[in-house]
Amino acid sequence: MTDSKSARRSPGKRERLAAAAAQVLHEKGVEQTTLADIARVADVPVGNVYYYFKTKNELVGAAIDAHAQSLRSVIDALDELPTPQDRLKALLHGWIDQRELTARYGCPTGSLASELDKRDDGLAEAVAEVMRQLLDWAAQQFRAMGREEDSRELAIALVAAYQGISLLTNTFRAPELMAAEGQRLERWIDSLA
Amino acid sequence: MTDSKSARRSPGKRERLAAAAAQVLHEKGVEQTTLADIARVADVPVGNVYYYFKTKNELVGAAIDAHAQSLRSVIDALDELPTPQDRLKALLHGWIDQRELTARYGCPTGSLASELDKRDDGLAEAVAEVMRQLLDWAAQQFRAMGREEDSRELAIALVAAYQGISLLTNTFRAPELMAAEGQRLERWIDSLA
Repeated sequence: MTDSKSARRSPGKRERLAAAAAQVLHEKGVEQTTLADIARVADVPVGNVYYYFKTKNELVGAAIDAHAQSLRSVIDALDELPTPQDRLKALLHGWIDQRELTARYGCPTGSLASELDKRDDGLAEAVAEVMRQLLDWAAQQFRAMGREEDSRELAIALVAAYQGISLLTNTFRAPELMAAEGQRLERWIDSLA
Repeated sequence: MTDSKSARRSPGKRERLAAAAAQVLHEKGVEQTTLADIARVADVPVGNVYYYFKTKNELVGAAIDAHAQSLRSVIDALDELPTPQDRLKALLHGWIDQRELTARYGCPTGSLASELDKRDDGLAEAVAEVMRQLLDWAAQQFRAMGREEDSRELAIALVAAYQGISLLTNTFRAPELMAAEGQRLERWIDSLA
C-alpha cells in the first residue's frame, strides 16, 4: 500500500488504541470517555484515530475484543495447571492480585456490562459474550471436579460472587473485601471437591 | 408563603420528582438521563423542576435518598418476621420477585453505584451509605443466628452474591438466573444456622 492515507497507518496503532480504550473505559466509563482521552493514552494523534475507528462505539467494540483476548490468555495460562481446583484457585488469586485496581474502578468487564446494559447500541451483547466465555470455562472446571449435575450453577455462583465483590470493593474503596471474599471462595471450592 | 414562586410549589412534587429520578436513573443511567426525562415521568412541568432541584446531581442525590427510604421500609417489614432466617429469606424472595426488572435494568442501587464510582462528584459516597445500611442489617441477622464470629463476612458474601447475580441476570437478560441463585442462597442460609 503506497497511498498517503495508508502510509499514516502502522500495524501497532490499532492494538494500542484498543488497549487504551479498554483502560480509559475502565477508569471513566463509556459516557465520560472521549476519543481524545483514548488517543492520548495510546500516544496516537487524535486525528489519526479515525483511520482505525470511525466512532466511539467502534472503539468500545475494540475494547471488548481486547477484554476477550485478555481473558483467552488468562484461560490458556490457567489450563497449564494440573487440576481443576488449582485452575479455579489461580483464577481467584488473579482477581485478588487486581484488588487495588478493582477498588478504584471496579471489574473492567462488569462495570462495562453494567453501563452498556442501559444502552441500545448492541454492544451489551458483545460484552455478554466475554462473560459467557468465562462461565463456560468455569463450568468445565467444575465438571472436571465431578460436579456434572450442578457445574453451570456453580460457575454462575462463582462469577456472580466475583462480580458482586468487585462492586462492593469499588463502592467502599476497600481492596480487603476482595481478599477476604477470595479466601472464602477458595474454601468453598475445596468443599465442593 | 404567599409569593408567586412558592405558590408554584406543592408538597407532593418534590417526592414525585425524587421517585421519578430513581426510576429513570435505573432505566437509563446517570449520563443518559435528562431533567426533562425525570420531569415527564414525575408529571411535573420541566420549568418547575428548578424550584426543587437546581442541578441533575441534586436529583441524583434525591434518588439515592429515595433508595435509602425504600430500603428502610423493606427492612422495617422484614423486622416483623419472627426469626433471622425468615427475615433473610424474605429479603431473597423480594429480590427474586424483582427479577424481570433486574433482567432489564440491573439492581437499582448497584448499577447506580457502578456508574457513580467512576465520577468525582461525591455521590458515590451517598450510595455506598445505602449499601452499608443493608450490610449492617444483614450482619445483625447473621449474629442473631449465632454467627458472631463471621457475621460481617457472611453479610458481605450475601450482598455480593445479590449484586453479582443482578449483573449476570441483566447481562444475559435472564431472570431465571436470579431465581436459581436465590434458591441456592436459601439453602446456604439454612446451612449456616
